[in-house]
Amino acid sequence: MAKDVETAEASAGEFSAKDYHDPPPAPLIDFEELTKWSFYRALIAEFIATLLFLYVTVLTVIGYKVQTDPAKNLVDPDCGGVGILGIAWAFGGMIFILVYCTAGISGGHINPAVTFGLFLGRKVSLIRAIMYMVAQCLGAICGCGFVKAFQKHYYNHYGGGANTLADGFNKGTGLGAEIIGTFVLVYTVFSATDPKRNARDSHVPVLAPLPIGFAVFMVHLATIPITGTGINPARSFGAAVIYNQDKAWDDQWIFWVGPFIGAAIAAFYHQYILRAAAIKALGSFRSNA
Amino acid sequence: MAKDVETAEASAGEFSAKDYHDPPPAPLIDFEELTKWSFYRALIAEFIATLLFLYVTVLTVIGYKVQTDPAKNLVDPDCGGVGILGIAWAFGGMIFILVYCTAGISGGHINPAVTFGLFLGRKVSLIRAIMYMVAQCLGAICGCGFVKAFQKHYYNHYGGGANTLADGFNKGTGLGAEIIGTFVLVYTVFSATDPKRNARDSHVPVLAPLPIGFAVFMVHLATIPITGTGINPARSFGAAVIYNQDKAWDDQWIFWVGPFIGAAIAAFYHQYILRAAAIKALGSFRSNA
Amino acid sequence: MAKDVETAEASAGEFSAKDYHDPPPAPLIDFEELTKWSFYRALIAEFIATLLFLYVTVLTVIGYKVQTDPAKNLVDPDCGGVGILGIAWAFGGMIFILVYCTAGISGGHINPAVTFGLFLGRKVSLIRAIMYMVAQCLGAICGCGFVKAFQKHYYNHYGGGANTLADGFNKGTGLGAEIIGTFVLVYTVFSATDPKRNARDSHVPVLAPLPIGFAVFMVHLATIPITGTGINPARSFGAAVIYNQDKAWDDQWIFWVGPFIGAAIAAFYHQYILRAAAIKALGSFRSNA
Amino acid sequence: MAKDVETAEASAGEFSAKDYHDPPPAPLIDFEELTKWSFYRALIAEFIATLLFLYVTVLTVIGYKVQTDPAKNLVDPDCGGVGILGIAWAFGGMIFILVYCTAGISGGHINPAVTFGLFLGRKVSLIRAIMYMVAQCLGAICGCGFVKAFQKHYYNHYGGGANTLADGFNKGTGLGAEIIGTFVLVYTVFSATDPKRNARDSHVPVLAPLPIGFAVFMVHLATIPITGTGINPARSFGAAVIYNQDKAWDDQWIFWVGPFIGAAIAAFYHQYILRAAAIKALGSFRSNA
Repeated sequence: MAKDVETAEASAGEFSAKDYHDPPPAPLIDFEELTKWSFYRALIAEFIATLLFLYVTVLTVIGYKVQTDPAKNLVDPDCGGVGILGIAWAFGGMIFILVYCTAGISGGHINPAVTFGLFLGRKVSLIRAIMYMVAQCLGAICGCGFVKAFQKHYYNHYGGGANTLADGFNKGTGLGAEIIGTFVLVYTVFSATDPKRNARDSHVPVLAPLPIGFAVFMVHLATIPITGTGINPARSFGAAVIYNQDKAWDDQWIFWVGPFIGAAIAAFYHQYILRAAAIKALGSFRSNA
Repeated sequence: MAKDVETAEASAGEFSAKDYHDPPPAPLIDFEELTKWSFYRALIAEFIATLLFLYVTVLTVIGYKVQTDPAKNLVDPDCGGVGILGIAWAFGGMIFILVYCTAGISGGHINPAVTFGLFLGRKVSLIRAIMYMVAQCLGAICGCGFVKAFQKHYYNHYGGGANTLADGFNKGTGLGAEIIGTFVLVYTVFSATDPKRNARDSHVPVLAPLPIGFAVFMVHLATIPITGTGINPARSFGAAVIYNQDKAWDDQWIFWVGPFIGAAIAAFYHQYILRAAAIKALGSFRSNA
Repeated sequence: MAKDVETAEASAGEFSAKDYHDPPPAPLIDFEELTKWSFYRALIAEFIATLLFLYVTVLTVIGYKVQTDPAKNLVDPDCGGVGILGIAWAFGGMIFILVYCTAGISGGHINPAVTFGLFLGRKVSLIRAIMYMVAQCLGAICGCGFVKAFQKHYYNHYGGGANTLADGFNKGTGLGAEIIGTFVLVYTVFSATDPKRNARDSHVPVLAPLPIGFAVFMVHLATIPITGTGINPARSFGAAVIYNQDKAWDDQWIFWVGPFIGAAIAAFYHQYILRAAAIKALGSFRSNA
Repeated sequence: MAKDVETAEASAGEFSAKDYHDPPPAPLIDFEELTKWSFYRALIAEFIATLLFLYVTVLTVIGYKVQTDPAKNLVDPDCGGVGILGIAWAFGGMIFILVYCTAGISGGHINPAVTFGLFLGRKVSLIRAIMYMVAQCLGAICGCGFVKAFQKHYYNHYGGGANTLADGFNKGTGLGAEIIGTFVLVYTVFSATDPKRNARDSHVPVLAPLPIGFAVFMVHLATIPITGTGINPARSFGAAVIYNQDKAWDDQWIFWVGPFIGAAIAAFYHQYILRAAAIKALGSFRSNA
């Protein structure tokens, strides 16, 4: 991958004749977008995508727990389910599909932490950010509702796919795991949507949904044993609403505070370190002198 | 993925100077296509692809069940097979390969529900749709026939790869699982083949077969414990014909009605909500006024 | 994927103004290529690629068998290894990597059956085909030799990664499994390298190594329980030479005859059905009339 | 993939009218790059990427070992963890994501052996190579530090994710496994970044991060039972520093010497055999005569 270093340097040293176009920052409040059908279509797309995300993933989690329960004496109790690896694939694979399908409609967030990070990076307006989060949370509730309707014998018995802190971990660890996990995801999203890198590396725009899905897959492999892996407040909230038991609500704040902090750090890292907003101002000053 | 939002909006607001071309709706009945070799070539490609799909996937299912049967006392009974995760990969991976190979020949349906959805979206003619479904069902029967010929000791003993409702689930749940599962698949197919999105997002045409395969993979992870996962009437029909036992035939209607309803909802969602056929008519009216 | 159908038809009906270029058939014997460094470089690349392929895959097989042997009382005997799913990934993933790396050097065959199929399709000369097969077999022997050197305690004890027919299957079944499995692989290779489809579908050239790797992955999922999955005579031959026990040699013919028949059928299917060599001649006759 | 053979030959025979541009070799020492922000940004990107790599992968390893420990009597002891297959995915998948995200910033090395190989291939200067290695080692230490902080009960008990030679293998085998494993990785990196192949095969630049990630995945499948798989001196060093027990330090040299030898062989193979530096000089001599 060394080829990119030279051109990246060249441009960083000069700050002129750019081969890419950074769109202007999104306004905080943009009433005009409220008059467009595409805004409401994007809300519907986020709602449906989050619904499908929770439906498939929580159904996979419940199905796995049913088939590996030793009390049920199923034919092959140990490996009957898809395993934690299969659960991690379900979360990562669904994000890959849904980002692929909705990127051109809504931007493909499907996650309030992603929306929050992109809002901080001024990629979406405040109104759009809030409305997306509402649509995502409603979608997540409906998705879990379908699972409970389909698996009514097992849904509550097997934890309802809710995120809770596992025994033996303190709240600080859970919060830290959510912060770093969400950082991995939102950092990948910023890398995939950066206009500068899209213009220069052909793999960036073409593969985009795949590394975003893989980021979710990877974080699940690492942190399912700690928190069940949230990194998506809508996912944690939807499961808590339908499962509705104390433990899920007591830990709920971790799955909002952690992802939002992680997304904020990723937005800062991308905008101020990697895209070097501050240094660029200095650079253009120098080239004028 | 936020970059796409602006341009999508711009176009949704204006409805002019389109950078893409929607082909005209396919005629209901097109006798001219019956005179072309490419039509029959497409039927052959659908037949062979569905044959290979059933052959590889059902062979994987039977091989897994043989190796995990505790009654057989194999060396490593618990994890000897590829697991449900491996079975889900077999279904999803084969669809990825076969869509890749046949997309340019027949459109790469390999599934009557996909054909039905694309017919409703006016992407294929009625005659083509019916002939594809016949070719797919014949291919599925032949594919399962090969598995039975190769695994004659085990094929019927281990369920023949047929789709049936698992114990503990009622028919409504099975139907719902098939509807939503097929919706995920056909929604992905519509997203992958939309001319508007192909023109704007470089990842859409290039990755296309991959998210379609992943959609099949994901739905299998979620619904194998409920129905064995159909979402493809030819797959369910072919296995039922070769397995030919009452339970498979009794539940067979679920695996036709469910996928067709799911495909119809996906066609409606894509054409009327995401591509907003109705709103567009209004929009062009307004811009004329 | 329906979009492709129309243009495919258009072209199939007209046979004029082609937007792609079919290279002329490779000569049977081309002495000039023997004078070029690129020919010997291609042989080296095939040798090294097949060596790495056998080294990684057979090492994975042996490591899996060591860790799942109940006689060894390892800490977690049942799931200690990567599973049959991991073995299938090793074969498919290595082919993905190696085709990616060698496609531009040697065409990325890494398999005498692929070479044979492409020879029948007149994509490579006879001399090149024979020399590739020799390089592939030598590479496979060396790759297995490294594994035996590294795992000397276990290599012979755990079957040496050799392909043999499993108990309970007759030779006809093994041969049939090899024929269909190789057909899946070589059909995918022909689809990925077809100049007509490369010109029309952007996913064809870009993804090419991925579906080829997945084809190998899928066939392993399905036929490991039957033959251990050959579909690559060099892989079967190299393991047999290093393992060198009667059973592996007795069944060896299956792993040459089966793959060569499967490759021949795939070449015929692609050239005469999908690319319709015969019909095209008729078509151009008609358009002249 | 046969299509590429002809053009490759044509060019190898002529050495004229090249359709690609080989950048000049990087200088050994380039003081100018020290004055640029992009140099320090690249160091930060390598530091953060290696930190995230170790954090996610070692957390996955520890989580797996906790859940499969029979002494803990967890609900499903045998298959509770993600398995060795999941661990291999964690290493390979993280490299895929991180190469995708950092390729345009730092070249996406995340591994001192890759940096060493690219230095030998004259793709990066000596100063950059040394500074990258320092950043990678510091990142790896911090990444393991996070895991120890989060899993303090288990980190040391379950081996700390450190690379050590498994019982029953001698040092020569471990060294050999590291050499060949790193060769696979660095050979893939060279193939993915070769300007000649980038210009000719559209899959080369577009897929690039994927086969690099898969190379890491594959080598882990094969050599986890032997050395735990290093092929990345920063990964082995960071884990050894935080784990800090004799066995990890005693074997540490294997995980530096092996990868550096493997990277050197890959650089030699790519530059002198595949790109044929020596032969090219002869060729241009001949075409002048």
